Amino acid sequence: MQIAIAGATGYTGLELTRILSAHPHVTISALTSETYAGQEYSSVYPGYLKRELPRLEPLVPDAIIAKADIIFTALPHKEAMRVIPSLLKRGKRVIDLSADFRFKNQKTYERWYQEHSAPGLLAKAAYGLPELYRSTIKKAKLVANPGCYPTSIILPLVPLLQQGLLTTSSIIADSKSGVSGAGRSAKTASLFCEVSEDFRAYGVFEHRHQPEIEEQLSSLSGSTIKIAFTPHLLPMSRGMLSTVYTRLKKSARTQDIQSLLEKFYKKEPFVRILPQGTLPNTAAVRGTNFCDIGFRLQEKQLVLISCLDNLVKGASGQAVQNMNIMLDCPETTALNMAPLYP
Amino acid sequence: MQIAIAGATGYTGLELTRILSAHPHVTISALTSETYAGQEYSSVYPGYLKRELPRLEPLVPDAIIAKADIIFTALPHKEAMRVIPSLLKRGKRVIDLSADFRFKNQKTYERWYQEHSAPGLLAKAAYGLPELYRSTIKKAKLVANPGCYPTSIILPLVPLLQQGLLTTSSIIADSKSGVSGAGRSAKTASLFCEVSEDFRAYGVFEHRHQPEIEEQLSSLSGSTIKIAFTPHLLPMSRGMLSTVYTRLKKSARTQDIQSLLEKFYKKEPFVRILPQGTLPNTAAVRGTNFCDIGFRLQEKQLVLISCLDNLVKGASGQAVQNMNIMLDCPETTALNMAPLYP
Amino acid sequence: MQIAIAGATGYTGLELTRILSAHPHVTISALTSETYAGQEYSSVYPGYLKRELPRLEPLVPDAIIAKADIIFTALPHKEAMRVIPSLLKRGKRVIDLSADFRFKNQKTYERWYQEHSAPGLLAKAAYGLPELYRSTIKKAKLVANPGCYPTSIILPLVPLLQQGLLTTSSIIADSKSGVSGAGRSAKTASLFCEVSEDFRAYGVFEHRHQPEIEEQLSSLSGSTIKIAFTPHLLPMSRGMLSTVYTRLKKSARTQDIQSLLEKFYKKEPFVRILPQGTLPNTAAVRGTNFCDIGFRLQEKQLVLISCLDNLVKGASGQAVQNMNIMLDCPETTALNMAPLYP
Amino acid sequence: MQIAIAGATGYTGLELTRILSAHPHVTISALTSETYAGQEYSSVYPGYLKRELPRLEPLVPDAIIAKADIIFTALPHKEAMRVIPSLLKRGKRVIDLSADFRFKNQKTYERWYQEHSAPGLLAKAAYGLPELYRSTIKKAKLVANPGCYPTSIILPLVPLLQQGLLTTSSIIADSKSGVSGAGRSAKTASLFCEVSEDFRAYGVFEHRHQPEIEEQLSSLSGSTIKIAFTPHLLPMSRGMLSTVYTRLKKSARTQDIQSLLEKFYKKEPFVRILPQGTLPNTAAVRGTNFCDIGFRLQEKQLVLISCLDNLVKGASGQAVQNMNIMLDCPETTALNMAPLYP
Repeated sequence: MQIAIAGATGYTGLELTRILSAHPHVTISALTSETYAGQEYSSVYPGYLKRELPRLEPLVPDAIIAKADIIFTALPHKEAMRVIPSLLKRGKRVIDLSADFRFKNQKTYERWYQEHSAPGLLAKAAYGLPELYRSTIKKAKLVANPGCYPTSIILPLVPLLQQGLLTTSSIIADSKSGVSGAGRSAKTASLFCEVSEDFRAYGVFEHRHQPEIEEQLSSLSGSTIKIAFTPHLLPMSRGMLSTVYTRLKKSARTQDIQSLLEKFYKKEPFVRILPQGTLPNTAAVRGTNFCDIGFRLQEKQLVLISCLDNLVKGASGQAVQNMNIMLDCPETTALNMAPLYP
Repeated sequence: MQIAIAGATGYTGLELTRILSAHPHVTISALTSETYAGQEYSSVYPGYLKRELPRLEPLVPDAIIAKADIIFTALPHKEAMRVIPSLLKRGKRVIDLSADFRFKNQKTYERWYQEHSAPGLLAKAAYGLPELYRSTIKKAKLVANPGCYPTSIILPLVPLLQQGLLTTSSIIADSKSGVSGAGRSAKTASLFCEVSEDFRAYGVFEHRHQPEIEEQLSSLSGSTIKIAFTPHLLPMSRGMLSTVYTRLKKSARTQDIQSLLEKFYKKEPFVRILPQGTLPNTAAVRGTNFCDIGFRLQEKQLVLISCLDNLVKGASGQAVQNMNIMLDCPETTALNMAPLYP
Repeated sequence: MQIAIAGATGYTGLELTRILSAHPHVTISALTSETYAGQEYSSVYPGYLKRELPRLEPLVPDAIIAKADIIFTALPHKEAMRVIPSLLKRGKRVIDLSADFRFKNQKTYERWYQEHSAPGLLAKAAYGLPELYRSTIKKAKLVANPGCYPTSIILPLVPLLQQGLLTTSSIIADSKSGVSGAGRSAKTASLFCEVSEDFRAYGVFEHRHQPEIEEQLSSLSGSTIKIAFTPHLLPMSRGMLSTVYTRLKKSARTQDIQSLLEKFYKKEPFVRILPQGTLPNTAAVRGTNFCDIGFRLQEKQLVLISCLDNLVKGASGQAVQNMNIMLDCPETTALNMAPLYP
Repeated sequence: MQIAIAGATGYTGLELTRILSAHPHVTISALTSETYAGQEYSSVYPGYLKRELPRLEPLVPDAIIAKADIIFTALPHKEAMRVIPSLLKRGKRVIDLSADFRFKNQKTYERWYQEHSAPGLLAKAAYGLPELYRSTIKKAKLVANPGCYPTSIILPLVPLLQQGLLTTSSIIADSKSGVSGAGRSAKTASLFCEVSEDFRAYGVFEHRHQPEIEEQLSSLSGSTIKIAFTPHLLPMSRGMLSTVYTRLKKSARTQDIQSLLEKFYKKEPFVRILPQGTLPNTAAVRGTNFCDIGFRLQEKQLVLISCLDNLVKGASGQAVQNMNIMLDCPETTALNMAPLYP
């Protein structure tokens, strides 16, 4: 099976390359980059010296179509929806890491992003969260890979929401992300000197992942859900932690919540419910496709805490997980790595 | 005026030394350390070479009493309350950075810490948050310097609580601290390899600063207040940010909240209400005694965000601010430094 | 093939676990730890939840012998030489990550470390640098895995020394290491607050890796070689870079040096000579078993620069490479990972 | 005394602002920035809220001339030499932080930088290293503030060179700098994700500070000196350490070298010769104007190690030290800060 990565030199493109170059059932046949077209991948990322990879090329849909069966698009939003329709028309399957096809509601997309240039595809795209949409993903031609914050917030909440245990009017998600989430573009705000030894909130009530979370939680729970979402920027490269504050409708025992979560994710290879009383930390999932979940309960106040690597389960690892599902490979293929620690 | 620092080689003792060695109206006449007694301060902290400082000595109350008028105790709790009564008896004024005298309610202290060995002093100690207790501090013989988390959470909340604007049943404080808050003792959990590129919550519902915050907020607002408090550990040395989620009883305009906060702290040199729409970041207060406050409002959901340097406004800077008040110096003396950035 | 890791909870033990748990031809049958004996590996390192690993046990030679064919000893020196003879006597093969069997010259060992309790084994141990001792390693019962600094310094120098191109009296190695090299023990000097935003030299002319480098370089070049060796501590977890200053006896062209290095390491899977004019960086080898080498030449002044991950090619990865050789597996088995970047 | 800072929003401009806003004898009357002209300083650096500072303005020489007696130019080279002549013509004194006036030899400047547009000023500019050129600086109209690497390398070498103790043909300077030395411009190479957990050499034999060091060492020692200079990039914001390898012509005792260095810098407030056997570290000088020097000697091999804060003694602090000399203030005015540690 031949695969292509469009946008291969950003951090999510790089992470796709890292994971897919170790995948036993696929071959990377094309890597695109506008900035570095014509260069060897190892001239951009010298860590890839001595690895067999195709030379970087500009993104020309016809060229990609000729080379690949499955195409990962790790492009900025807007650019993704410009390119993807032509790939689908030629029978290719696409896993898109941008936000362009994550929404079912076109108006929501357009309010938070921009006019949509391929709205007809919104209904056809599968939301690529395997734990919740596995069967749809399996057959999909187009998978919209979820945002990193949404993945970290939806996974701990859904088991409780689907049981109707939560007061849905007061969910608060306080999330913290490593700076690789801001990508590799040269911005003053992402400089080492600006990020190191600093911590800040940003985009409170204004972050584009908020409507994505709300659309998904509403759809998955069957009722309109609004959340208060505060993202923060951590002085580190990789890792995301969400502290989710909820209220139970009725008191429950810690053991009940533990069992509910464990049962819900019992068969999932990449969601780990931590032993009772234990809270997750980002370093334990660094470089892996895991989402770790722990919680604390005090009377009706339930605090859920989830951790993932924003570039893996929050982006490229999840994309490969989706590909494995689409290809009917074992879902953990090429994703079974232990964390790099320290 | 002669001052002594008991426990001078921990991080808060070091920070007291940094600030007080530049203070024009006091002289450091004694520095104690059990571990390094007999050594020069610069042999522990080579950055202090060429600065005139007394040699480190063991903590012998009589020796300290002979040398100093004001004594800063930067000792572990329990040890502080063992030493302080004898200092006070000899007429010395004490600024204590431990938790031992922060509570009015002895039972609360004993539930969260241990048996109190000098409970008679609890009522006499001033809670050293100058913005709220300035006149009491001025006359106090014993000042209990507040915890870092409490300072960062009480300052943004009090103006709103005292106006009765908040629903008091649902206050959530999601706080994040640099690792210097854990002190200088050699613990695996504080190693570079364990902290760098990691982020985690700890002590949810169990942190000892929670009852301190609750006692203060209750006392200052005149009604019993419980909060949900989740501290997290940041991969950085200095800095603290608290994201405080509250609900207004009635809708308000952003401008109203802005005015209320600005008015409340109008004359305060160390509390900065950021321009409307701006959120604080820890690096902007690094090394300074400022507490910066910003907020976002959406309907009734009000998110307050505060930043401070946990070793300065969260500990030693605030202690010196208290001393300045006690000595009737201008409150900003030796505390007017700009942040070290980057 | 069953393998055991003695000292499995230090950083090199952890790294062995990371690599070997993904090795297709071996099974980890025992993991020892004195501190955590009786606990699950995942209770020490939660990143290992959901991975099948034996419970931690105290180091009892008989127990290990019963369970494993090959034993990795990731123990402090002195402890290693106390345990290893009994393992060898029972026919086991041992790969030792300590310094205890790295020296041929007992006196050198004893001058820099302590009295040797198993000097008879020194001659029998293979120095585990595969690029230079592959055939000896293949048959060895005991492999002494090299130090991280020696690996980074010997690899770039040997091709030039063996051709007799260098003035041997003036070799200077200025090396810089991430702090994971100091291990996981709780020391003040390894605290986040002490290491972050700091850089320092340590152990100039006194570091125990110096005699190891000198013994190896002398033996490999056939003449007595002394070097000036200055190690430094980097504010990062993983990674090592050595800047090696040498003088050529006669002028040479850059292309000549490039060819010589490329030819020498042509067939080596884990030594990468960078394209001419390119210098290595540690992040490009993070988490991998590569040693990257670049250089600059100006007249007779040749500066060689090498990079490796101190926990992988500098320790546990190299140990697994040795194991692969001993087992006659392809040498890259379980070691073919791409770097984790960023 | 009114002072202006041209280029006030780069990191050296910011550091000048930090230091000068606490200087008792000068007032900052103008701050220029092309990018942020018209804005408050605190809108660029929120840490400067509540500090009285002039609004940012574009660099218009006539406007600056009208407002200031002394002008600091923290501009990119080339731009500096374009502006400075007009300032000098109007009788202003200028302290230039660029490289434009550091060389006496115009050809050297032009070989490494570009054509010089004001070569007539080269002879008149004082090289602003106070420890070596104090009397010239005192009277100078134009001070060329030294590069950070040159400061760190010249200070430890000069005492030995002036005594004729060193073999001058084999001096090697292996230097390591924090990333703030690369300035605040948005470059991929300075992103947090690229710098954190990475270490690399750059510009070996090609760095523009090499000819500056060589011109100064030659001039100060009276003989032509060439050095091998290898700069490296540290994963930290501030701090520089140079490891300087030299050979003594004749053997000496450690005590002799110690005495020579101590004597040479006996009266200098900002050069600290560490106690014998002690080596410096960058954190001990963070935020201060100190250059700390230690060394190790083995037979004739002498390794000198120096540390400074590249933004303070390596740039803006040294510039203020020069200003103090020019104004006949005590040299330590506004520069007597203790390090911010941790």
